[in-house]
Amino acid sequence: MNTFGTLFRLTDFGESHGPAIGGVVDGMPAGFEVDLEAVQAMLDRRRPGRSAQTSARREADTVRFLSGIFEGRTLGTPIGFVISNDDARSADYEQLRHTFRPNHADYTYHAKYGHRDHRGGGRASARETAVRVVGGALASQVLASAGITVSARTLSVHGATTPEAIEEVIRRARADRDTVGGVVECRVDGLPAGIGEPIFDKLPAMLASAMMSINASRGFEYGDGFAAADSYGSGQVDAFCIRPDGTVATRANHSGGMQGGISNGAPVVFRVAFKPIATLPRQLDTVTDTGEAAVIEVGGRHDPCVIPRVLPVVEAMTAMTILDAVMMDRARRV
Amino acid sequence: MNTFGTLFRLTDFGESHGPAIGGVVDGMPAGFEVDLEAVQAMLDRRRPGRSAQTSARREADTVRFLSGIFEGRTLGTPIGFVISNDDARSADYEQLRHTFRPNHADYTYHAKYGHRDHRGGGRASARETAVRVVGGALASQVLASAGITVSARTLSVHGATTPEAIEEVIRRARADRDTVGGVVECRVDGLPAGIGEPIFDKLPAMLASAMMSINASRGFEYGDGFAAADSYGSGQVDAFCIRPDGTVATRANHSGGMQGGISNGAPVVFRVAFKPIATLPRQLDTVTDTGEAAVIEVGGRHDPCVIPRVLPVVEAMTAMTILDAVMMDRARRV
Amino acid sequence: MNTFGTLFRLTDFGESHGPAIGGVVDGMPAGFEVDLEAVQAMLDRRRPGRSAQTSARREADTVRFLSGIFEGRTLGTPIGFVISNDDARSADYEQLRHTFRPNHADYTYHAKYGHRDHRGGGRASARETAVRVVGGALASQVLASAGITVSARTLSVHGATTPEAIEEVIRRARADRDTVGGVVECRVDGLPAGIGEPIFDKLPAMLASAMMSINASRGFEYGDGFAAADSYGSGQVDAFCIRPDGTVATRANHSGGMQGGISNGAPVVFRVAFKPIATLPRQLDTVTDTGEAAVIEVGGRHDPCVIPRVLPVVEAMTAMTILDAVMMDRARRV
Amino acid sequence: MNTFGTLFRLTDFGESHGPAIGGVVDGMPAGFEVDLEAVQAMLDRRRPGRSAQTSARREADTVRFLSGIFEGRTLGTPIGFVISNDDARSADYEQLRHTFRPNHADYTYHAKYGHRDHRGGGRASARETAVRVVGGALASQVLASAGITVSARTLSVHGATTPEAIEEVIRRARADRDTVGGVVECRVDGLPAGIGEPIFDKLPAMLASAMMSINASRGFEYGDGFAAADSYGSGQVDAFCIRPDGTVATRANHSGGMQGGISNGAPVVFRVAFKPIATLPRQLDTVTDTGEAAVIEVGGRHDPCVIPRVLPVVEAMTAMTILDAVMMDRARRV
Repeated sequence: MNTFGTLFRLTDFGESHGPAIGGVVDGMPAGFEVDLEAVQAMLDRRRPGRSAQTSARREADTVRFLSGIFEGRTLGTPIGFVISNDDARSADYEQLRHTFRPNHADYTYHAKYGHRDHRGGGRASARETAVRVVGGALASQVLASAGITVSARTLSVHGATTPEAIEEVIRRARADRDTVGGVVECRVDGLPAGIGEPIFDKLPAMLASAMMSINASRGFEYGDGFAAADSYGSGQVDAFCIRPDGTVATRANHSGGMQGGISNGAPVVFRVAFKPIATLPRQLDTVTDTGEAAVIEVGGRHDPCVIPRVLPVVEAMTAMTILDAVMMDRARRV
Repeated sequence: MNTFGTLFRLTDFGESHGPAIGGVVDGMPAGFEVDLEAVQAMLDRRRPGRSAQTSARREADTVRFLSGIFEGRTLGTPIGFVISNDDARSADYEQLRHTFRPNHADYTYHAKYGHRDHRGGGRASARETAVRVVGGALASQVLASAGITVSARTLSVHGATTPEAIEEVIRRARADRDTVGGVVECRVDGLPAGIGEPIFDKLPAMLASAMMSINASRGFEYGDGFAAADSYGSGQVDAFCIRPDGTVATRANHSGGMQGGISNGAPVVFRVAFKPIATLPRQLDTVTDTGEAAVIEVGGRHDPCVIPRVLPVVEAMTAMTILDAVMMDRARRV
Repeated sequence: MNTFGTLFRLTDFGESHGPAIGGVVDGMPAGFEVDLEAVQAMLDRRRPGRSAQTSARREADTVRFLSGIFEGRTLGTPIGFVISNDDARSADYEQLRHTFRPNHADYTYHAKYGHRDHRGGGRASARETAVRVVGGALASQVLASAGITVSARTLSVHGATTPEAIEEVIRRARADRDTVGGVVECRVDGLPAGIGEPIFDKLPAMLASAMMSINASRGFEYGDGFAAADSYGSGQVDAFCIRPDGTVATRANHSGGMQGGISNGAPVVFRVAFKPIATLPRQLDTVTDTGEAAVIEVGGRHDPCVIPRVLPVVEAMTAMTILDAVMMDRARRV
Repeated sequence: MNTFGTLFRLTDFGESHGPAIGGVVDGMPAGFEVDLEAVQAMLDRRRPGRSAQTSARREADTVRFLSGIFEGRTLGTPIGFVISNDDARSADYEQLRHTFRPNHADYTYHAKYGHRDHRGGGRASARETAVRVVGGALASQVLASAGITVSARTLSVHGATTPEAIEEVIRRARADRDTVGGVVECRVDGLPAGIGEPIFDKLPAMLASAMMSINASRGFEYGDGFAAADSYGSGQVDAFCIRPDGTVATRANHSGGMQGGISNGAPVVFRVAFKPIATLPRQLDTVTDTGEAAVIEVGGRHDPCVIPRVLPVVEAMTAMTILDAVMMDRARRV
């Protein structure tokens, strides 16, 4: 369904070209002083049209809170919010009404629901992730007040790893009317040992689910990840030691801060692979909703690479996941 | 918590060296004729002690059903079952009572719960996965009756990809008192288009969560996975075409059968990376639960590689995930 | 939390005097033609200010849908909606900032959250039930398309059972600056046998929970209810018989259409007791949030009786409960 | 489904005449010293065959714990347990294979599932409530350690309210081959203010759901309950006052300790109506599963009144509900 989380929950609604997108955050602790400007600032980081590297669609993407915050502090009640869809040129999308774009969700939504909003991807548009960023921004603030920080960075774009090389790769992809993918690394610092539930709700399982729910993600790994599959056990040892202050630590972090699905106090580190954006300004073979062969070319305003904009989304989903796990752990301490 | 799934649910209990492990399957359709021998056969596939490659612990691992099945067919009521822990030499584990094995869950369980069962990993032992196989075997049978099959295979072990090379890699690891990891590929055939929920409960998100909940897993990817991050969008196109029978198909399957989080009718294909088993017959630096430095060496009966035994677990978690998604989709069709 | 239902879900937000109340309906079947005027009409039935019997606060209470409906039909995606709070005279409530009204939720919210919106009951205001009516109106339309109808009626007000007597009771209560309660009866017709889950999610359990979540409700009973506790078993027999069309029926309906927690095809019948509204225009002893004794008198616009307005709320909660149960039953039929 | 609760959870399985009934308790705090004899003692209170007033079926009803408790203390992991079905004379029930007992769940289970276990009510038997008592006994112990106690008592049986009159009513019902119902009152002492979630998961809503999930219950009310519907608001005032120790209290308790769905620190008080047991040793009109008219007479071992045995079930469901609410409240206090 469209609700994320168990104790800290985001319920998310909205199509790309409907009146608005929005959500409801349930589970915020009461009496928390919310920095609304910081929420908007995080939202601005994922906004299109901020740089030459991202699409030209201009949206204010201003979040409007409707409930749950009173005189600057949370009430403990659900926080409803909306973000208007201002710049929606629906007519641009008429050719998509009956024809499926390859590698998009057009066909699968049609197969599932029969009736769909064809304009700009509708519900499947990455625009929906703006709602997640609002939820994540609120979660981040709660975590920060407990000394826990979440930060994502670009690890590579189409194999390039330095800023200059990445810029060049993206520039060339745009020139070639092509798109490129990349890898994001995210880390959580300050998380104490003991967070995460065993068995099915292991912390890496929850993080993997959160990451694979982001549009265009294709892979998740933590610690040494896929490389661990080619390693010897003797090369993967995170030996325990005692820090000068008497606390337990690991000498290495091959486990990415999680053992048995539970945090061990080391930084939580994981990576997410994103495929190239599916919208290509090229002619592609496809079919229509009445089963006819067709050719489609989608023009318009699109990013050659999702990476610069996806970082706050990765952080948002991570923050909500971690806060939920912290709250779940807290509940047990009756 | 210890329950997996929304509509098809497995609740799982048991420590490695307690009286028994077991579970409750809730949500099985009523009137379904269960092949109990096939359940046991799937369970036998994950049993230790079956070959030179796996550990020597002998367990009958016989599942005993306590409810939910009457005169050979399901009642629609919960199916309770237990598997006794017969071969538990608890005394072997006394050295683990206060000392943490590196890369195991000993320390994180201690940090989370304070009190733990130190014998054989307790709740964190891979023995618990036998319970999942029972749930998955039941789910598999329901799926098979709808023409949906799930199959996992070893893709590589420590980089080796052929049976001979894999056997040699494992033999050498055992000789070196070391362990190795590997990669498993799983595919789902026969799944119709339209299965999976959008946004947070995308099918790949659910599968990733299921896979990352398996002991020793470190990474998940579907379709072209991490390789997609280094590709061009133009090289990732799954163009649509019309099959001779009039149905829609894709010419390629870079998307691993899922687009926008929903199945598109192509085979669902994903891979899971498993790290080398943490139990090494070597001296390792560690600490005790009172914060003293210590050295630990764990002997005994252990696998040099998780891969041969983990295949039915991967299949089981996949089958439960897919059946749950099919039921969720079905619920909407009021 | 603030989400109702499992498969058909309403997530609800908003304080009485914040910018807006609203909600998200998740789980509506796709392609369903929604009668938006009928939604508004059901909402109008619970609006204050409609008659001499209800309070004078005037609110347009116009629902605005933001997503999930496209070209008149549902998309299968979540339906977000808002209802603005237009007529909120916050200044009226300044005396409630630090002083608790007896029998209201002022003190319990303060005890739970520390920080609260004191204006007009904030989150605990019955205004929130408008959101439920929107969700229930949508559910009702889906049920109606399957031949299932839900209808609530006033059974008694302060013991009076005829319209004239009820009007007189309410008139006198207003004149006496007092309030009165009453009993509502609700029935569901057309529900087939087999709906409802056994054990914990019995249909009467779900209905009881739904009813006891409505402000001012104090009791729930179905079939012969509390009177059954004083009866003989021999006087409670719902003997089975065969209808002329060959279907099974019961000769009586002491069980209110539910046996073993599951519908038996007879009309579902239950009753809900509502206490008198707590807001009394009298001086009442109370305390402040700093623990001082105080006297409070709340004036303003208030109903002497909740009954006329609560009928659509009872219907809404019933419709959502029934549809959720129907969908849960449907999910099993894989 | 067959799981009760959100953070403190009981998953329940078993048919009356299968090999065993049992359950899994998930969410127990770790390190808690469990009094296993007290669990068994609570279980013994609901056992049939203890007195002349209850049925003659003899069952040891001995609970066997399989996991989650190690060296006398909880591990924080799920607590699996089983209770064997020792005294099951299945042959007694052959006449029920195709014929439905009126007022039982035979017909509704048939309508829902098609296939059912006809022996002794199968899954719908009150025997299942033994599992609830185990879960409730564990919850009670955790609550008791926090100073919270739960106690149920018989308020009336067929209108009789004194022990002598009740004994006489039951004796006469047995002599008349009839059955009688009654009302149970339950109270929770020591619950602090602030427990319970607003809106849908109000504490009375959760309690009502828990109570209406018990076999043979027909009504729930709290505080003044149905009588409140006939009262004036001025007669329902729970004025606040300051206790000598400076804490807030109410002068009366018309609200049964809950206002706005949240505990206010006064004792929580509610009542549950139970109908007469449906099993009557008389000839009753009914139908078969092939739609033929039939007459049925059920003999055997049955109680004339559920009341003496249901008290520990009411307490168990209450204890689990309250502990779950306490844990939910705790989770927020990040």
